[in-house]
Amino acid sequence: MDKFVIGVDIGGRSMKFGLFTIDGELIAKSSIITRTENEGNFILEDLVEHLEKIFEKYKLSKENLLGIGIGVPGPVVNKRKVTRAVNLNWDREVHIADYIEEKTGFRCLLANDANAAALGEQWKGAGKGLDSMVLLTLGTGVGGGIIIDGQILSGATGSGAEIGHMTFLEEDLHRECGCGGHRCFEQVASATGLEYICQDFLFDYDMESSLRDIDQPSAKDILDAGKNGDKLAYMICQEYFKHLARGLSILAAVVDPQRFVIGGGVSNAGDFLIDNVSRYFKEYAFPSVKNCQISIASLGNDAGIYGVAKLLID
Amino acid sequence: MDKFVIGVDIGGRSMKFGLFTIDGELIAKSSIITRTENEGNFILEDLVEHLEKIFEKYKLSKENLLGIGIGVPGPVVNKRKVTRAVNLNWDREVHIADYIEEKTGFRCLLANDANAAALGEQWKGAGKGLDSMVLLTLGTGVGGGIIIDGQILSGATGSGAEIGHMTFLEEDLHRECGCGGHRCFEQVASATGLEYICQDFLFDYDMESSLRDIDQPSAKDILDAGKNGDKLAYMICQEYFKHLARGLSILAAVVDPQRFVIGGGVSNAGDFLIDNVSRYFKEYAFPSVKNCQISIASLGNDAGIYGVAKLLID
Repeated sequence: MDKFVIGVDIGGRSMKFGLFTIDGELIAKSSIITRTENEGNFILEDLVEHLEKIFEKYKLSKENLLGIGIGVPGPVVNKRKVTRAVNLNWDREVHIADYIEEKTGFRCLLANDANAAALGEQWKGAGKGLDSMVLLTLGTGVGGGIIIDGQILSGATGSGAEIGHMTFLEEDLHRECGCGGHRCFEQVASATGLEYICQDFLFDYDMESSLRDIDQPSAKDILDAGKNGDKLAYMICQEYFKHLARGLSILAAVVDPQRFVIGGGVSNAGDFLIDNVSRYFKEYAFPSVKNCQISIASLGNDAGIYGVAKLLID
Repeated sequence: MDKFVIGVDIGGRSMKFGLFTIDGELIAKSSIITRTENEGNFILEDLVEHLEKIFEKYKLSKENLLGIGIGVPGPVVNKRKVTRAVNLNWDREVHIADYIEEKTGFRCLLANDANAAALGEQWKGAGKGLDSMVLLTLGTGVGGGIIIDGQILSGATGSGAEIGHMTFLEEDLHRECGCGGHRCFEQVASATGLEYICQDFLFDYDMESSLRDIDQPSAKDILDAGKNGDKLAYMICQEYFKHLARGLSILAAVVDPQRFVIGGGVSNAGDFLIDNVSRYFKEYAFPSVKNCQISIASLGNDAGIYGVAKLLID
């Protein structure tokens, strides 16, 4: 008889559900709206209700379902509870695994969503077959996940791989990070960070640039223009790639992974990103880790449901 | 019958041997000179010769000796081999564990010396009873070891926790690090780094200071003067403590350990170091990791032999 696992990714806007075989084949996906009102008290009820529909539709029972993995946007302790999740309006500890196990009768394990994405990429994506890798997700912020010996490094308080909040800058920036800090890696390495760097360059340099025709150039605008030969955009991108490469070389000196995997919106820049970041990385990094590979993530937004499904299979 | 393990720390000047009970009691210590001449080819022969003396003196046999743990100053892969060790004149891979097992008949496991010291502190020192901790050794350079779930994070190439070579600085320093880099944490966070900061401050500021009476103030001179109320020395120490704290807050965002443990010569500054670094750390660090403890190491130069002994007991 085929055996299955379910992976759920609870986001601030929607919850995504995936049904997997234990070999990691994704056989069905669905999603529902996340109702964050009422201090997020509807979220787990809605989640269980949708799980029950899945159990029924796919005839899942104790005989063929190993359990449910859940990814959540907050610090996860012991794969059981999240200590808070701002995007879900949970300003409190929520014992998700206990709740789901009690309501459904199936085993449940949790992971932080970014960490889960890293485990997903290591299982079935750009880190397939590796023991160790670090995922960086470059979007509005910078998410991260570290896999060592095939396991998530979740940290003592569930804040392992909070890579975006490495105090990367020597001096305080005049603008504040979402965490309250002023020196965070995320402030220069996220898509938003790239947009800030762009504003500074447009002001500081008088060179012509196609970016001046755009009201607020997005990270995509900047990367596209840089790739297509706009000189100022190219300079902006290089400045950004240097920040990324220095961040990776810090991580390489600490974790020494087999591979870095880059995801998130910025990763759509593909080879333009990888080639330049790899070049600066080799310049900065400690000699014995210079050959660490840098690749683009391959599972996109599904990485998280893969990762939490994998938790149940270990 | 009592069971034992032997821990050996191969340094560039001497090899230290410790005989431990499996409960971690150090019952005998001895050491021999490290002969690094002849491309370091005498080292393992001398090591085995001394081991045999220990076997005989303490009546160790297959019945009561679990094995031999060895710490080595270079990148260690799979607890079996070191890929190079500059201080031992080994510019090549050396399969230490294979050699020792063949010559002695006892099981042998290796660790990098700094990583071993971290495991030692976690077993019987300042990290006792914890699952995760990070050791920083602040001496001529900056050594490091990361323990997660009671295990050394040794890295894909044996370069895990090369904390001294985090590319910490945004701009190149005019002076070069031992690794060839110009932005390394070690360049500002080692005892040597403190001495450089001191030289810069003595030149840049015209304030009186007891340090001006010393030809080349050592890290100890600077820390003592700072602790004893010399104003310029105090400013120098604060600058140094800020660097340390930012390094710790980077590590906290990546690893999220339960505790930081500080060893090496600089750690003799005790509470003056811990109180100031803790204060800056709380200012810089990501909110959920701000309460991470910072303590002084307690095993001194024996930490390494404790750590490699522990490898055999796991």
